[in-house]
Amino acid sequence: MLFHVRMNVDLPATMPPAEAAALKQTEKDLAQRLQREGKWRHLWRIAGQYANVSIFDVDSVDELHTLLTSLPLFPYMHIDVMPLCRHPSSVRDGDI
Amino acid sequence: MLFHVRMNVDLPATMPPAEAAALKQTEKDLAQRLQREGKWRHLWRIAGQYANVSIFDVDSVDELHTLLTSLPLFPYMHIDVMPLCRHPSSVRDGDI
Amino acid sequence: MLFHVRMNVDLPATMPPAEAAALKQTEKDLAQRLQREGKWRHLWRIAGQYANVSIFDVDSVDELHTLLTSLPLFPYMHIDVMPLCRHPSSVRDGDI
Amino acid sequence: MLFHVRMNVDLPATMPPAEAAALKQTEKDLAQRLQREGKWRHLWRIAGQYANVSIFDVDSVDELHTLLTSLPLFPYMHIDVMPLCRHPSSVRDGDI
Amino acid sequence: MLFHVRMNVDLPATMPPAEAAALKQTEKDLAQRLQREGKWRHLWRIAGQYANVSIFDVDSVDELHTLLTSLPLFPYMHIDVMPLCRHPSSVRDGDI
Amino acid sequence: MLFHVRMNVDLPATMPPAEAAALKQTEKDLAQRLQREGKWRHLWRIAGQYANVSIFDVDSVDELHTLLTSLPLFPYMHIDVMPLCRHPSSVRDGDI
Amino acid sequence: MLFHVRMNVDLPATMPPAEAAALKQTEKDLAQRLQREGKWRHLWRIAGQYANVSIFDVDSVDELHTLLTSLPLFPYMHIDVMPLCRHPSSVRDGDI
Amino acid sequence: MLFHVRMNVDLPATMPPAEAAALKQTEKDLAQRLQREGKWRHLWRIAGQYANVSIFDVDSVDELHTLLTSLPLFPYMHIDVMPLCRHPSSVRDGDI
Amino acid sequence: MLFHVRMNVDLPATMPPAEAAALKQTEKDLAQRLQREGKWRHLWRIAGQYANVSIFDVDSVDELHTLLTSLPLFPYMHIDVMPLCRHPSSVRDGDI
Amino acid sequence: MLFHVRMNVDLPATMPPAEAAALKQTEKDLAQRLQREGKWRHLWRIAGQYANVSIFDVDSVDELHTLLTSLPLFPYMHIDVMPLCRHPSSVRDGDI
Repeated sequence: MLFHVRMNVDLPATMPPAEAAALKQTEKDLAQRLQREGKWRHLWRIAGQYANVSIFDVDSVDELHTLLTSLPLFPYMHIDVMPLCRHPSSVRDGDI
Repeated sequence: MLFHVRMNVDLPATMPPAEAAALKQTEKDLAQRLQREGKWRHLWRIAGQYANVSIFDVDSVDELHTLLTSLPLFPYMHIDVMPLCRHPSSVRDGDI
Repeated sequence: MLFHVRMNVDLPATMPPAEAAALKQTEKDLAQRLQREGKWRHLWRIAGQYANVSIFDVDSVDELHTLLTSLPLFPYMHIDVMPLCRHPSSVRDGDI
Repeated sequence: MLFHVRMNVDLPATMPPAEAAALKQTEKDLAQRLQREGKWRHLWRIAGQYANVSIFDVDSVDELHTLLTSLPLFPYMHIDVMPLCRHPSSVRDGDI
Repeated sequence: MLFHVRMNVDLPATMPPAEAAALKQTEKDLAQRLQREGKWRHLWRIAGQYANVSIFDVDSVDELHTLLTSLPLFPYMHIDVMPLCRHPSSVRDGDI
Repeated sequence: MLFHVRMNVDLPATMPPAEAAALKQTEKDLAQRLQREGKWRHLWRIAGQYANVSIFDVDSVDELHTLLTSLPLFPYMHIDVMPLCRHPSSVRDGDI
Repeated sequence: MLFHVRMNVDLPATMPPAEAAALKQTEKDLAQRLQREGKWRHLWRIAGQYANVSIFDVDSVDELHTLLTSLPLFPYMHIDVMPLCRHPSSVRDGDI
Repeated sequence: MLFHVRMNVDLPATMPPAEAAALKQTEKDLAQRLQREGKWRHLWRIAGQYANVSIFDVDSVDELHTLLTSLPLFPYMHIDVMPLCRHPSSVRDGDI
Repeated sequence: MLFHVRMNVDLPATMPPAEAAALKQTEKDLAQRLQREGKWRHLWRIAGQYANVSIFDVDSVDELHTLLTSLPLFPYMHIDVMPLCRHPSSVRDGDI
Repeated sequence: MLFHVRMNVDLPATMPPAEAAALKQTEKDLAQRLQREGKWRHLWRIAGQYANVSIFDVDSVDELHTLLTSLPLFPYMHIDVMPLCRHPSSVRDGDI
């Protein structure tokens, strides 16, 4: 099942640069592992913003929530989730 | 170049059913042709709405605008475009 | 899987009363069948509005979309869907 | 009487983790007691957010307000209340 | 129990003046009866708008919804309901 | 003249509890005096929020502004003012 | 007493031009009379819109509402009213 | 040329009272000088808010921006500017 | 003086195609004349919308309003105007 | 390819003036270099705000994002990007 997820990141200005860098690296490692596992299907940067649009492919809403809240940057993000389904005009079978 | 496009369709209640059906069929044919040509990369229905989220892959903003305004349902849609770029944590080379 | 669905109904003032009454009766019959089947778990009226808050229990987003678009009033509704998951403080096992 | 309550939690980043953990545990204990007493009928997490949708069953608006303001996380929440009533198409007698 | 109700009226421009006048007179008669019965405690016009702010005193949300939907202008109004409760600084006992 | 006033209070988390308590007590004393003088006609709590809806009865806008800015919590409130006038369907003479 | 009034006009496209012209002329005559009487202190067009910002000087909210609803274009306007009072830094005595 | 300017002031709670008082005095002095010079035509307080509505009369947008950014409270204000022009129904020649 | 103007066009679905085509042609002729005269400095289409972003260079707000309301599509447009001024970091002298 | 970019700057009140001045100077130097290189085509101040409207001319969305995130003030800005394309009524060939 696919979900459209928009994440806006807002790190506090008072966070020490080293702490921010460590957080971002852990986030990147996890994001890449989840992409390789097929859970995080797409990940795009929104131009001009510290924000992304992502497509997640999960077995349940609970799995989606568990994945999102496991992200190191979760406490610093505003997240909006929109459930997607197959479009009758889509030609790509695997694209739900 | 990738663009995130959201289309909300609002057909007037007074449109004759046959005219609406013809419009939708022409729209579907064009949407499928553009998907096969690789211009319209993804097309998902938003659950519960007569709306979709799409990813277009075009060479320029002008090409994007030409494609969108050529859609038969264009006069009945509200469209929002958001430019996307490669995310530093993405693992998929072709996914921009 | 549970989804929180809000439906706002807006029937055109020009619809003949008999047509509106027939639509509402068909809607009611289907809503009651879906409730008995366990797909439409809860259905509440929002005070002062021609609108409801509902909880759907479905196997997939596609099933949810199919149910919602099969409602006779669908063309006259604005629908917002919000995916829900089990809350760690919930004491009700069957309440996801 | 049923009320639809949405709670969005926003703990200050400067709160010591031990204090936050203690607050959340007290909140959980109270939430579970209120659920067992039947006052807090449903409690669902909104996917991807530190927020919940709840259904309260109380005898008066004053009782609702007293319950909500007694929550340990109340000072850190934005709360929206929407009064619900029985839907004419509902098949569940106890569901108001 | 008190509820704060805001009603914005929007009569279609195509409604014949006689029909509009009849609707308004029936609305007025009912509004005055409900005020005399104590259900509709306050009724104020918002300056410059075809809208009012009202305070209803009812025994339940269902009673409130029944009253509001019985108003002849209900199909032409947008209504927002906000539950009120006694303020700890209020000096008026009967003012909830 | 009547004015509809909505006040949302937002005390900074860093304010010492004793200072907050003192502020609230002074606010309450003044609010009760103004109610007894007839200037602050109604004062209701909005369920689930640190906010109130009030009706002020003053001789001029200047008097209203002077009263509101004299409230000890004024620096911590967002206030919206809406001028009210007599509704043609009102049956209460003294209710403007 | 001064009130800041913003009026946005939206004439239906189906109104016959002669009817629109007559409405506007009557509106203009009344607006000019009210200005000469000192009730309508200022009247400015908002650049690029069929809208104005006005300052009314009236003895009460009821008088303001009576003036606004007497305007021939009232049924076609959205009006927002904001009460003004003397600013402590103002140097103009008559400007409230 | 006239411009409608709305200024909302938000002084940080941490600003020492003496610093705030000094800022406000300088602001007042400048505001009064600009009013006497005819640049700042009108200045009204919005009831219940630390905000004002002003009318500026300047020779160019650059002059307006220079005046606004020279205000001592500028760093603590949110400002919205709306260009005004003569209204065809205005009877006051000097009121643009 | 430069003004940033956004125009969103919304032609009624009931307008006969020939009338729409004639309106658009007259609009285009006037737009091109104003561009050649230097009044309408820039004109860009917003991708995916029947809308444009324009920069006007006029001597006064009145001239701007006169130009905008003379556009044949004016009755079918929503227009927002934002005054611009020279940016201290701009390197282009003629770009205000 | 042209992109319409709006930047709103919000420097924290706690930033030392020397640090703010240095940031702004570096920003200015880079902005001027990018203008001279033709990447940053236009740069205008929005009257009354610490904000600008800019037009960027880049070869790709990735280039735009790289430019914007390289700005020293980027961490303190909210940025909105809107893709532009040639307007059919434009008379300026180089203006896309």
